Amino acid sequence: MKLHDLAQAIEGDCDQPDFEITGIQSLEHAGPGDLSFALGLDYLEAVTNSRAGALLLPRDFPALDRPTIRCAQPALAMAKAVELLRPPYRPAPGIHPTASIDPGARIGPQASIGAYAVIGPGCRLGARAVIHPHAVLYPDVWAGDDLLVHAHVVIREGTRLGDGVILQPGAVVGGDGFGFTPDGDRHGKIPQVGRVVIGSRVEIQANACIDRASLAETTIGDGCKIDNLVHVGHNSRLGENVLLCAQTGLAGSTRIEENCTLAGQVGVAGHCTIGARAIITAQSGTHGDLPGGEMYSGSPAFEHGKWLRVMALLPRLPEIYQAWRKGGNK
Amino acid sequence: MKLHDLAQAIEGDCDQPDFEITGIQSLEHAGPGDLSFALGLDYLEAVTNSRAGALLLPRDFPALDRPTIRCAQPALAMAKAVELLRPPYRPAPGIHPTASIDPGARIGPQASIGAYAVIGPGCRLGARAVIHPHAVLYPDVWAGDDLLVHAHVVIREGTRLGDGVILQPGAVVGGDGFGFTPDGDRHGKIPQVGRVVIGSRVEIQANACIDRASLAETTIGDGCKIDNLVHVGHNSRLGENVLLCAQTGLAGSTRIEENCTLAGQVGVAGHCTIGARAIITAQSGTHGDLPGGEMYSGSPAFEHGKWLRVMALLPRLPEIYQAWRKGGNK
Amino acid sequence: MKLHDLAQAIEGDCDQPDFEITGIQSLEHAGPGDLSFALGLDYLEAVTNSRAGALLLPRDFPALDRPTIRCAQPALAMAKAVELLRPPYRPAPGIHPTASIDPGARIGPQASIGAYAVIGPGCRLGARAVIHPHAVLYPDVWAGDDLLVHAHVVIREGTRLGDGVILQPGAVVGGDGFGFTPDGDRHGKIPQVGRVVIGSRVEIQANACIDRASLAETTIGDGCKIDNLVHVGHNSRLGENVLLCAQTGLAGSTRIEENCTLAGQVGVAGHCTIGARAIITAQSGTHGDLPGGEMYSGSPAFEHGKWLRVMALLPRLPEIYQAWRKGGNK
Repeated sequence: MKLHDLAQAIEGDCDQPDFEITGIQSLEHAGPGDLSFALGLDYLEAVTNSRAGALLLPRDFPALDRPTIRCAQPALAMAKAVELLRPPYRPAPGIHPTASIDPGARIGPQASIGAYAVIGPGCRLGARAVIHPHAVLYPDVWAGDDLLVHAHVVIREGTRLGDGVILQPGAVVGGDGFGFTPDGDRHGKIPQVGRVVIGSRVEIQANACIDRASLAETTIGDGCKIDNLVHVGHNSRLGENVLLCAQTGLAGSTRIEENCTLAGQVGVAGHCTIGARAIITAQSGTHGDLPGGEMYSGSPAFEHGKWLRVMALLPRLPEIYQAWRKGGNK
Repeated sequence: MKLHDLAQAIEGDCDQPDFEITGIQSLEHAGPGDLSFALGLDYLEAVTNSRAGALLLPRDFPALDRPTIRCAQPALAMAKAVELLRPPYRPAPGIHPTASIDPGARIGPQASIGAYAVIGPGCRLGARAVIHPHAVLYPDVWAGDDLLVHAHVVIREGTRLGDGVILQPGAVVGGDGFGFTPDGDRHGKIPQVGRVVIGSRVEIQANACIDRASLAETTIGDGCKIDNLVHVGHNSRLGENVLLCAQTGLAGSTRIEENCTLAGQVGVAGHCTIGARAIITAQSGTHGDLPGGEMYSGSPAFEHGKWLRVMALLPRLPEIYQAWRKGGNK
Repeated sequence: MKLHDLAQAIEGDCDQPDFEITGIQSLEHAGPGDLSFALGLDYLEAVTNSRAGALLLPRDFPALDRPTIRCAQPALAMAKAVELLRPPYRPAPGIHPTASIDPGARIGPQASIGAYAVIGPGCRLGARAVIHPHAVLYPDVWAGDDLLVHAHVVIREGTRLGDGVILQPGAVVGGDGFGFTPDGDRHGKIPQVGRVVIGSRVEIQANACIDRASLAETTIGDGCKIDNLVHVGHNSRLGENVLLCAQTGLAGSTRIEENCTLAGQVGVAGHCTIGARAIITAQSGTHGDLPGGEMYSGSPAFEHGKWLRVMALLPRLPEIYQAWRKGGNK
């Protein structure tokens, strides 16, 4: 692919239009035929050391002695360039003869359904669905267009999904919530008969679990991205564009408003609300509400700047304690 | 269903016996034909705002202008009402033609075995087993009556399960323990040839992992409930009615005595014992034994009341430190 | 099996060569026909209480009135004895008629491929592969000899695996990394088209997730052992013989040098390097680099000895604070 054609496709400007690009790679692994990329000035040394034949750069990056494409949003342009130069694996349309599709299911045009996939009665899938081998859709799962479901995903009965939803391998949508109530000496099970409602452009990654509601709905807003091994408890509600990083857990009836980011291994207790655009840093936790627009850290979490000062002091506690006891030099 | 018939079935008293109920829903989502419920006085405002046609209430709840069922244990009564009004999905009895059942397996009456389920030689399942599509039972798995196994569950060789066990999608029972021993510069594998023994009325939720013992048994007592993504290490022993909330991890040879509750993301190190009826709050951890009957918090965990006082002080550390340095106003 | 033959096989010395061994068990569960073992003097009381017929012991263990095998490395000898006396379950070689193997896949000799396993085009497996039922290998997965893949494992396209790799049930190798970039108000997906490269003798346990790289490679060095529910983010690099205990998470582009041990529920932020032979204790976390050869604790983590002193002081903070306020007895 000529640099000029690529630049046009990703809305950038190139300086050597006839340079031939054969691949795209990270700076470290790129070779003379590859395009690579730098997102800012801190990539400068890596660019210098890279064998990449051409570079995708921000507009204000210093001049280089190699062919370049410059653009306003290099990360986004890079994502588009990858789609063109190394399109992700996608099985061909068609229905594998071993797929078990209930006659009462409706599948849109151009679907690809893999070996041993199971699609239950009452399911309705939009156009261009890709269902990899061994995915299981229980009865009455409805999805919009461009559903992409990887191997060993389970989507339980009654789930609703918008357009462009991606489920990575082993994700479980609609498992029973953890709902029990005392029954004499025992934990009596509260039937979990609500459902999960997932918006459009949501991605749920490997082995993450989104529990169905007890009676009503667990809802995941449009554009949410949920990383590996995340737990979303029953009746939780996520606003639009929430990021839940790996191994984060939401206990139940948890409300995460739009555009929040919860970093890895964060925990939020039941019935809490996290306000819009809040950021909670890794391994933090809260058992109370947190107002939006701020960054929080710690377990229990409080304001991030204050937490940094506390954590700077914490390792010094023993020496401070000794100084106090001795009444010595402060 | 008439309110009178429902009240009788769930052992409550109703005031408008002929009122017709068509569903059951949360206060927020209920409509005029729905029964909803309040578990105590803190639901009062939500009850007032709800469109629910009828309400299930504790006996001492204030009078309402709507039909009610009053009962001693409203949460338990609600669970029973859900079973009657919105019974959970359950596939019809029968064995799907694609299920791969070894001729040496014994399956009790009225079983439902789904598409592509695999049941190995020597397996014995009691009456009314429900095995959803794609569950895999390795050889020699024995279970009591009313086993309910969801899609993509794996139960490895030799596992024993009591009556009424429920396994949510993707749960793994009997995976190898994490057992290695130095072998020169390498980690030599210790074969994991023990098994998992699970009592009756145990529920293990989505993508949770219960490892087999090295030689003897990992045991899960009657009535234990294990949430999504929990890890139970090899040779652990859980007493009756233990609750392990989501993403909790038990390292190995861990002993959790009866009626303990470990909240979400708790960790317990190897060879520790947690005494009966202990409660460990979310994100806490311990590498030592904890006596029963108490509540613990922190990592490492100590008595909860003391932990609350420490945590109230922690964010103030920098200002206290500055005050001390200045010798100023305390 | 005669004690003499066993002793010879595991390179130990026995005192009653004709004693007949029928099994191997833990001290607590062993009977008169069983061999059991003690790894050191702290097992002395358990040995005395055990009904084991014979014992595997370190050379310097006190004399017993029972048949013994003494050896230099009892844990390693025990592992070998288990292999002989209770060999782990292994399905017979052969290809199940329901396995879906692409004609373009190459499978080495003596393979065992279970029911409904799916092996995509371009896959190449070495000798003696064991693929349990319902494992899914996407296209172009290459593995060395002695691959052991349990039920419901997913290995995505292009993964490379060395010799003797073991994957426990539900493990996911090669799921998309969590890579997004702002696209207007939305999170735009960065295609994840790199791969995972796994060395030899690696074991990845149940429901753990190893993400593929964005463009280049996520690499797992020879001899690494990865426990249940671990998350390894995209572009991470593990040196040889790293141990990642259960529920640990590596964010992305994380580098863990050789012979590190990360205990349970540890978290490492993106782009950090953990130096060789570092140990990070359970529930600790770091968002910075940590030099090798040391032990670290806390979140954020610092030197373990100092952390122990801080943690000993922490529960006493309220009383120290009160004493300071009162100006009283220190």
